Amino acid sequence: MKKYAAEFFGTFWLVFGGCGSAIFAAGIPELGIGYAGVSLAFGLTVLTMAYAVGHISGGHFNPAVSFGLFAGGRFDAKELAPYIISQVLGGIAAAGLLYLIASGNASFAIDNTKAGAFAANGYGNLSPHGYSMMSAFLIEFVLTAFFLIIILGATDKFANGKFAGIAIGLGLTLIHLISIPITNTSVNPARSTSQAIFAGGEFIPQLWLFWLAPIAGAIVGGLIYKFLLQKDENLA
Amino acid sequence: MKKYAAEFFGTFWLVFGGCGSAIFAAGIPELGIGYAGVSLAFGLTVLTMAYAVGHISGGHFNPAVSFGLFAGGRFDAKELAPYIISQVLGGIAAAGLLYLIASGNASFAIDNTKAGAFAANGYGNLSPHGYSMMSAFLIEFVLTAFFLIIILGATDKFANGKFAGIAIGLGLTLIHLISIPITNTSVNPARSTSQAIFAGGEFIPQLWLFWLAPIAGAIVGGLIYKFLLQKDENLA
Amino acid sequence: MKKYAAEFFGTFWLVFGGCGSAIFAAGIPELGIGYAGVSLAFGLTVLTMAYAVGHISGGHFNPAVSFGLFAGGRFDAKELAPYIISQVLGGIAAAGLLYLIASGNASFAIDNTKAGAFAANGYGNLSPHGYSMMSAFLIEFVLTAFFLIIILGATDKFANGKFAGIAIGLGLTLIHLISIPITNTSVNPARSTSQAIFAGGEFIPQLWLFWLAPIAGAIVGGLIYKFLLQKDENLA
Amino acid sequence: MKKYAAEFFGTFWLVFGGCGSAIFAAGIPELGIGYAGVSLAFGLTVLTMAYAVGHISGGHFNPAVSFGLFAGGRFDAKELAPYIISQVLGGIAAAGLLYLIASGNASFAIDNTKAGAFAANGYGNLSPHGYSMMSAFLIEFVLTAFFLIIILGATDKFANGKFAGIAIGLGLTLIHLISIPITNTSVNPARSTSQAIFAGGEFIPQLWLFWLAPIAGAIVGGLIYKFLLQKDENLA
Repeated sequence: MKKYAAEFFGTFWLVFGGCGSAIFAAGIPELGIGYAGVSLAFGLTVLTMAYAVGHISGGHFNPAVSFGLFAGGRFDAKELAPYIISQVLGGIAAAGLLYLIASGNASFAIDNTKAGAFAANGYGNLSPHGYSMMSAFLIEFVLTAFFLIIILGATDKFANGKFAGIAIGLGLTLIHLISIPITNTSVNPARSTSQAIFAGGEFIPQLWLFWLAPIAGAIVGGLIYKFLLQKDENLA
Repeated sequence: MKKYAAEFFGTFWLVFGGCGSAIFAAGIPELGIGYAGVSLAFGLTVLTMAYAVGHISGGHFNPAVSFGLFAGGRFDAKELAPYIISQVLGGIAAAGLLYLIASGNASFAIDNTKAGAFAANGYGNLSPHGYSMMSAFLIEFVLTAFFLIIILGATDKFANGKFAGIAIGLGLTLIHLISIPITNTSVNPARSTSQAIFAGGEFIPQLWLFWLAPIAGAIVGGLIYKFLLQKDENLA
Repeated sequence: MKKYAAEFFGTFWLVFGGCGSAIFAAGIPELGIGYAGVSLAFGLTVLTMAYAVGHISGGHFNPAVSFGLFAGGRFDAKELAPYIISQVLGGIAAAGLLYLIASGNASFAIDNTKAGAFAANGYGNLSPHGYSMMSAFLIEFVLTAFFLIIILGATDKFANGKFAGIAIGLGLTLIHLISIPITNTSVNPARSTSQAIFAGGEFIPQLWLFWLAPIAGAIVGGLIYKFLLQKDENLA
Repeated sequence: MKKYAAEFFGTFWLVFGGCGSAIFAAGIPELGIGYAGVSLAFGLTVLTMAYAVGHISGGHFNPAVSFGLFAGGRFDAKELAPYIISQVLGGIAAAGLLYLIASGNASFAIDNTKAGAFAANGYGNLSPHGYSMMSAFLIEFVLTAFFLIIILGATDKFANGKFAGIAIGLGLTLIHLISIPITNTSVNPARSTSQAIFAGGEFIPQLWLFWLAPIAGAIVGGLIYKFLLQKDENLA
């Protein structure tokens, strides 16, 4: 049971910290943290929890990561459902608490016709800077594929595994530095779901892309690592 | 005695570096470091001192952390008082020196009707961006709880403990990236006290929240880690 | 074959992440990541791939690095050609995908009379802030020389080799913090080639400098490390 | 001789990278790296060289550090002169090359009546934001003292010594985040000397402070660590 608790709290922290920094601190004139600060925040949620509870659950915090680790031969299929349920519940709990805290500001309101509302992910008219559905699909697919290559490579038995938390966390920072303007960056269906629930409106019918593209990308990334990169001695 | 000196100098550095970067460098037009730079500064005070004197005192630098480690079963109750006294004195000494250095600028003045004066923490009319007392309490409570989960997890005997200084320091950076706009970020009663003393005015009667919320959050975080996350073998 | 795949994917990631962050996220008003965010992105591509696939190919991702490691006595001459071909192909594939994704934005267009178009490198009239060919040559030469000193030193058998990925990745971040305004920063002929192909125009005839200066600098850096810095016991 | 070469190249890199980022990239409208980017650059020069050549010379790159390590009982007095000469020469060589590269920009000129010209350090009328000589002395003294506490602590035999390069490098980043507005941040007489030589004017007669305050601070920091913090077992 403790591994499911670890996935719940880890995903809670990813959503609370990453989306929270976007909601509270990104857009303040002059002093705000901007897209670079939000990118750093998302990465540090994973870096911190990887070192804090990675030894308990493996530190996925993301349904796409669980699928990709399964594709890469490192995760058992029968654990997929409980992990993903823990992750989605953790994300929703965090989004609810963000909503409660944000409501304590007199000027708070969610305008769900506007890209990035409540840190939700979107494409087309809900892309932060006007990117098409196809661009959104491609970027989410490719970035999640590389995220899995980083995860599988950095935790390979031939790698310096103790640094994996740094490489994976800062890898998520990098992914955000590239793609916030395109989709507000998901690569994580749990994070997309929690924010869409509270943002509502058109964000709900766009949610399919943020499950399909990251999971498909993660599976392809897992297979690339397994068949094209991983040393054969891993199989011995 | 050396562990108390380590807590004194460590907390001095946390306040001098974190609050100093906010006072001297945050708000300069064009070139200033903004909230992201202040977030990095706070985190790096802890990262640097964790590696410098963590082996001497354990590297708390924060009364809430001492309480949370006690709740998590890693710190002796009879050490609480001397640790907290050392921390508060270190913070006050740092704030005094910041005041002296800042006074060497002809334009220096503390307007204690304004949120964030002398880097002090506040809520309601003293919240940097207008958040209520309840929002302030919630964010300080939740962030300190997770700070303790990170600390207890990253120093768990099953974790990669040598990386704890990185995870904990950058965890504090993350906490600031999320919450400077809400309370100017405390999660540390010693840091709040030192700045309130010099800022004065309404900051003093608001100080209770920045003792109560972080310490309560830290205790809950400590209990969450101990009972919901920590592997049973820790008990063996 | 797996080492060539690792160089292909690693260089793909360097170009996709570094140039992608520049194309998509650097120049957005208020929230954009600026030159500092792009610098961080380039460095993190190398940091992440060094931990992910460094154990497979050594993690060059850059023809100049391969030449410099050869000059420093750490890389076999007969591997130069296949490594460099893998790197250039990986870079071109990434640039092509960036072009495809960027095209999904109605306002996308490459104005190749303008410095920095499609994140391409340039000097003189194509230097982001008006630096001469000589300044461009010098900065690329010197920065690549030091990049190789960092690489050779951090992977020296007397160094803390497991930290090499951090030192080398953040070294590339540092290199970009210094030099984006001068040449848009290359130090990597594969990265320059991939962007010049898609930018076209005057960027093509300027490409020679971004092969010659980095490779010459890398060779000199490799020789400096080998003859002036490396401890003699390395030879034992 | 190799340790002197390591100090020469390491200090060259500190000045070239730190001051270079300030000269080339800090003040560009919209995209510039600002004080936070310069802070990161200075820290990364030390982080990278600590891992690259720290095993050769110990990685001082700063006369104040050499004095402080001597005060802390970790460095031999008879090495002070050759180390400091190597450091100052490395700094001057870097400043000369920066001058040459900067001259390749048609708009380049040094206005030495203006604070921060050619990244030089100053106080009073040459303080970037109008701080007095006394404030300048205090901040340089205190920050260098803590820099030495970090260095001595992080390299203590009871500490996680392999992380020292990260703690010390990011410690220098932190120091810059706090103090660029006050003195343009020295804590390093070699760095101050190299820039003052090229900036000229009033920067030369102010140079005394940037030798005296950092060295005095470093000695006090070394003594604080040795007598108030260091575990007695170090003496065994």
